[in-house]
Amino acid sequence: MTSDSPATSPLTPLRHRIDNIDAALIYMLAERFRCTKEVGEIKATSQMPACDPSREEKQRARLHKLALEAGLDPEFAQKFFAFIVQEVIQNHKNIAARHQSHATDNTDI
Amino acid sequence: MTSDSPATSPLTPLRHRIDNIDAALIYMLAERFRCTKEVGEIKATSQMPACDPSREEKQRARLHKLALEAGLDPEFAQKFFAFIVQEVIQNHKNIAARHQSHATDNTDI
Repeated sequence: MTSDSPATSPLTPLRHRIDNIDAALIYMLAERFRCTKEVGEIKATSQMPACDPSREEKQRARLHKLALEAGLDPEFAQKFFAFIVQEVIQNHKNIAARHQSHATDNTDI
Repeated sequence: MTSDSPATSPLTPLRHRIDNIDAALIYMLAERFRCTKEVGEIKATSQMPACDPSREEKQRARLHKLALEAGLDPEFAQKFFAFIVQEVIQNHKNIAARHQSHATDNTDI
């Protein structure tokens, strides 16, 4: 069995809830990346490094606490955070490289 | 520079927004795993397989569409979904193994 009839399956109400949560997660993540894009632009303009270990450590500790409060496996929360941070740092590096390349272009002019 | 003064940094308001979003994400993820735990229990009781490729394909297509609407990189949305599904399937397998082990215990009694 790979899928059962949606009308009769006991999974259907749960799947509706999961789908609603997924939509919320996608919209939240879009907002998060909008914020981190702005952070990346500021960092690139100010020539700050893409990653900030001190800030990340504070975030990690906070998310651990929040995960415990929410009833989410704190180990999973850490894996999730590492997954997001990896993407954000790559985005910051891309933004910095673009700024660098624009600066070089301007020098050439 | 690894961190700048919170009072003066232009990053501070953005970081507050990111922190709020992260809290929402953690609480959403906790709810999502609460739902998938219930799904795992139903699947284990009904001896359904841990993964359902047909359902996953529908979710993948829906999240791609939602990501485009939200302004989130659809490739990242797919990576995020794969990351979550991997965890959920592992949890389903653990639940099924626990059910199996309880069934064996009962047989012994």
